[in-house]
Amino acid sequence: MISKGQIKLITGLQQKKYRTKAGLFAAEGPKVIAELEKEGLKLHSLFTINDETVQSNNVFKVSELELKKISFLTTANSSLALFEIPKTTPLATKGLTVVLDAVRDPGNLGTIIRLCDWFDVTQLVCSKDTVDCYNPKVVQATMGSIARLPIHYVDLNEFLENANLPVYAGMMDGASIYESALPENAIIVLGNEANGVSAEILSKVTARITIPQFGIRQATESLNVATATAILLSEFKRSTGK
Amino acid sequence: MISKGQIKLITGLQQKKYRTKAGLFAAEGPKVIAELEKEGLKLHSLFTINDETVQSNNVFKVSELELKKISFLTTANSSLALFEIPKTTPLATKGLTVVLDAVRDPGNLGTIIRLCDWFDVTQLVCSKDTVDCYNPKVVQATMGSIARLPIHYVDLNEFLENANLPVYAGMMDGASIYESALPENAIIVLGNEANGVSAEILSKVTARITIPQFGIRQATESLNVATATAILLSEFKRSTGK
Repeated sequence: MISKGQIKLITGLQQKKYRTKAGLFAAEGPKVIAELEKEGLKLHSLFTINDETVQSNNVFKVSELELKKISFLTTANSSLALFEIPKTTPLATKGLTVVLDAVRDPGNLGTIIRLCDWFDVTQLVCSKDTVDCYNPKVVQATMGSIARLPIHYVDLNEFLENANLPVYAGMMDGASIYESALPENAIIVLGNEANGVSAEILSKVTARITIPQFGIRQATESLNVATATAILLSEFKRSTGK
Repeated sequence: MISKGQIKLITGLQQKKYRTKAGLFAAEGPKVIAELEKEGLKLHSLFTINDETVQSNNVFKVSELELKKISFLTTANSSLALFEIPKTTPLATKGLTVVLDAVRDPGNLGTIIRLCDWFDVTQLVCSKDTVDCYNPKVVQATMGSIARLPIHYVDLNEFLENANLPVYAGMMDGASIYESALPENAIIVLGNEANGVSAEILSKVTARITIPQFGIRQATESLNVATATAILLSEFKRSTGK
């Protein structure tokens, strides 16, 4: 059974302003939910179509129809959980920082979070116009990685001005990533899907790097921002061996 | 103006059997359409809301409402074109071949085609249960790359048995890609999103390779198949320099 108030709360969490107000975000499916719990995120409430062995006062049995009403997925899974949005930790000054300048697609952000987790990136720093990481589509795409990676939304200009690390930007016209000396401590900037890194941010970049194309067939489109992130992170980690 | 017969033909192309029957596939938006034409694909017909300067008998002016009816996109672009499905070329025996074993997600296949194009892969060989490359969602995700890459759908067992190249499989439990000797001529197998490479195909694999995780945080989920392909192709190309 689910109350009208609960339905209103949960469906509201699709919007950032209601997530911020409630301090909550939603995650769906036993796999992702279990992963977030394992990482120590605080469970606010759980709505499930399965009979739970342990009944606690924040677990609610719902019908498939009720779950469908509150689900953000095209096909609802078997459970939906609300978690408290964790407090942000202080900005780190070592290791690899990935910076996103106005990345808009939730699927791309989710994939990038998963990659940052895989490659032991210290933190992800996003411009304020980057899609919110607690957007339900992003949360699902991270497969739980979101709980293992510190994520910040900041004024990028200010952040880069105060950063004491070399700043690399993934570009179409940079130096080959394969021939660049890549340090262990660095900032890697990736830009918007359509427009790349903005001019203002570019003025703060130390080195432009690119993933070279091979062969005589020349694609006119750059690589997708998530696949470019995959290759850049792999190269940084491989070449520094850290 | 668009006829009922044309609407029926176009909407039918969402299904593989009608694409095969008609020998046609759909592409949307001036950018993708221009790219496919540039690559020499044969235009069957074009439906556009813009007044075209050159009127030819296979260009049809349609209303926004008509375009919406035939579009496969959530938000219709300004034009939709039908192209003839090109004849498949003979299987190549040199260079890099990417093999997909039951990849089901159109977005993943589209991204992989774009990556194969970028990294000058000789051909893409798919199991018969891999999503069809002329699926409208795949075509859009390739951003035109589909016209530059030979793609085959074959019996994978048979193909691998007759292939005279080393066969690498991307796995969770293989040797580190960074420490493996990677040849210029090879086959790289990537598996299904949920189940990886199937047992039958694995029996034909020469070497299992993996993208190592870094740091102490350990993700339970493997990398997405498209991002794994990005990193593997980058490594093969970087290390052979070809």
